[in-house]
Amino acid sequence: MRKEIVNIGFLGFGTVGSGAVRILQENNVEISSRLSPRLKVKTICSPNIAKRDTSWVRDEVKYTTDPNVVLNDPEIDIVVEAIGGREPALSYINQAFEQNKNVVTANKLLLAQEGINLAKLAASKKLSLAIEASVAGGIPILNAIREGIAAEKIVSLYGILNGTTNFILTEMEKSGAAFDITLAQAQRLGYAEADPTLDIEGLDARDKLAILSMFCFGRYTSLEEIPTQGITQLTPIDFVYANQARCTIKLLCMAKIVDNDLLLSVAPTMVPHNSLLAKVNGSFNAIMITGASGGQTFYYGRGAGSGPTGIAVVSDIIRIARELTNGHTSLSSTFSFQNLEKSNVTELSQPYSFSVRFTVNNHLGVVAKLASILSENNINIHSISQDKLLTDKTNLSFVTMLEPTTPQQLHKALEEIKKLDFLIQTPLAMRIEENI
Amino acid sequence: MRKEIVNIGFLGFGTVGSGAVRILQENNVEISSRLSPRLKVKTICSPNIAKRDTSWVRDEVKYTTDPNVVLNDPEIDIVVEAIGGREPALSYINQAFEQNKNVVTANKLLLAQEGINLAKLAASKKLSLAIEASVAGGIPILNAIREGIAAEKIVSLYGILNGTTNFILTEMEKSGAAFDITLAQAQRLGYAEADPTLDIEGLDARDKLAILSMFCFGRYTSLEEIPTQGITQLTPIDFVYANQARCTIKLLCMAKIVDNDLLLSVAPTMVPHNSLLAKVNGSFNAIMITGASGGQTFYYGRGAGSGPTGIAVVSDIIRIARELTNGHTSLSSTFSFQNLEKSNVTELSQPYSFSVRFTVNNHLGVVAKLASILSENNINIHSISQDKLLTDKTNLSFVTMLEPTTPQQLHKALEEIKKLDFLIQTPLAMRIEENI
Repeated sequence: MRKEIVNIGFLGFGTVGSGAVRILQENNVEISSRLSPRLKVKTICSPNIAKRDTSWVRDEVKYTTDPNVVLNDPEIDIVVEAIGGREPALSYINQAFEQNKNVVTANKLLLAQEGINLAKLAASKKLSLAIEASVAGGIPILNAIREGIAAEKIVSLYGILNGTTNFILTEMEKSGAAFDITLAQAQRLGYAEADPTLDIEGLDARDKLAILSMFCFGRYTSLEEIPTQGITQLTPIDFVYANQARCTIKLLCMAKIVDNDLLLSVAPTMVPHNSLLAKVNGSFNAIMITGASGGQTFYYGRGAGSGPTGIAVVSDIIRIARELTNGHTSLSSTFSFQNLEKSNVTELSQPYSFSVRFTVNNHLGVVAKLASILSENNINIHSISQDKLLTDKTNLSFVTMLEPTTPQQLHKALEEIKKLDFLIQTPLAMRIEENI
Repeated sequence: MRKEIVNIGFLGFGTVGSGAVRILQENNVEISSRLSPRLKVKTICSPNIAKRDTSWVRDEVKYTTDPNVVLNDPEIDIVVEAIGGREPALSYINQAFEQNKNVVTANKLLLAQEGINLAKLAASKKLSLAIEASVAGGIPILNAIREGIAAEKIVSLYGILNGTTNFILTEMEKSGAAFDITLAQAQRLGYAEADPTLDIEGLDARDKLAILSMFCFGRYTSLEEIPTQGITQLTPIDFVYANQARCTIKLLCMAKIVDNDLLLSVAPTMVPHNSLLAKVNGSFNAIMITGASGGQTFYYGRGAGSGPTGIAVVSDIIRIARELTNGHTSLSSTFSFQNLEKSNVTELSQPYSFSVRFTVNNHLGVVAKLASILSENNINIHSISQDKLLTDKTNLSFVTMLEPTTPQQLHKALEEIKKLDFLIQTPLAMRIEENI
């Protein structure tokens, strides 16, 4: 069953869909030299296709607002789901599999929630579900874990997985501007959406981390169980203090196996300047993986946007088309593992150094009081810093660096501290990742 | 033809071979959960197997000094060629294909010379030739190019591809010690071989660059045509001057397509501190790829050693075993491209900024003379630096930074300068890569 033409149908023609169609067209020479069947965009479905500019599309494409025109077309081999969100994307993908079509999708939310079931369905029907575009856009990280280092026993993964928040953090550090102002700037420049909640609250990064943990460890979990903290609490002064400690601040995702439980976390974290992760600026993404045998590998690139995400989608299309050419039925697997198991999420319980920023109405004895509560909780203070430019004593931010303590001990101390009447804001505690 | 056991035969049991066997054993739990057939090490062949410690090998393995025991065993599915060098490795691989066996190899020298022919032979017999371990050890870079960003039109590749030289350069920068002393230290620590020629003259990096250019551009060339410069000329003072220019020095590999010709180069290069490539220290490797659609991606990890190279070998074994499990005959392709074409190598001809170190017997008029020759060749001097600690006027090194000029213009000027009697050493010119 060697195929000469592989027909592709698109559901959705926004950033991802149009990016993929553009790449199929513009990189046609390179793509044709990498596989023998021709990739043909047969049908594009979008509810508002009439409003889209399609004048640049050279393939003779059928345009439609009816997804069934794609899903029920027996000639279409691969459906690209580029709608996003849970429904109707989920129903369409299920329908595509029922109609014996392979599916490529960038839908991280759906995959984080339903990836296991969809992969099982695909496997049972000997079809391919390819999802490279769902995590870290133009970085081929899922492929690297599934194929490139398939023999590795992965010890830990650290990632910067959300371009919007990384752009905001980079800008705040550079300009010293407040979070709200920088968010508005990111929205003007197209780096943040009108409703930025999923990004700035860390939920988008969390979904991607959940997908990565399936690839690294063969484990999945309820998304709600993953401790997730966004970046809305951060202020420019946090970057000044971080810099004094030779660190920057990143919304860092972490995944590890600890005592057979899955340790997952999304939180603003202090990253030392000498780490490669500290060099990831603007809307870029990166992933650092430590393996038991091969040591550290690090992957960096654009996490979003039409071009990078389009490359991931079309590379998946090429992978599927190569299998179809060879008379194979499907890719060997969606995930790296044959079977995924549900896992509890455990909390970080090893001792870590922490930075804690207190914002207080300053008066005599404030430091003494904080220090004594920390001390009563067996937490040693490494240093206390107060920037000399801060003169507003009624709204004073200063930072204490704590010697290694468990998050549980720190939490207990901070609960006591929160009751103090001189405290103006909830203290902001950040883990210091000293060895990444 | 679903297989329950995939039998593996090893030719060679040095760093790479023993590393792979150890990983098959130690990561057995992870590997078994990633594919259904069991991977069994059936036979290990090494001319000096009697002297090797094999007490830790748990599989019931047949040991032999006769490669035919592996090559003629009809039960063996995958042969790992871990001997290195041209012969007898080439004959063994050919024989393995004749005997219908899939081949995994880390042999960069052989692949740079004969990769095309071997891949053709494998394809004609519907067998797999898997070569991830041949370039950048633990970094799954070939997989990334072939699968992960298969849709990309690659514009350029920059790489640090030799761990030995990168270790030496990092140590020279850190300690200020001379090249010879640092090389001896690298040899003591096992980072350099007794005969370090292939590494320090850039030939090992050149072979890997040749393989990468096949993956990026589908082009190959005679290895001798690739302009290759090693690191033996470098002195500690070069790092001092580089640092003043906010750069470090790396043995940088470059591959681009310029006017349909292949531009390849291996040379010590000035890399700005703010580039990710400047952060690649010690024996690590890294590759920066720029794509027309997806922009920059960067890959970093250990370039050599038993663990990282073993991971690449065993990951290739897993890829092949997955295909065998699915009843497929072979991997879709060794290279990213279906057909590779022979290409001329073109020389860098765009204007670049250069740093040139002159070592002279200093006297009045030296700078004037050099400046006038540069000026006669239409080369503008950006700056001239002389470290204040250098007091030996009879053997004085100073550096001129040149405004953008072509390598051809610079070469012409340097040919004239070389004739000057106050010159003690051949001037060392390094390209400054400002935008990587």
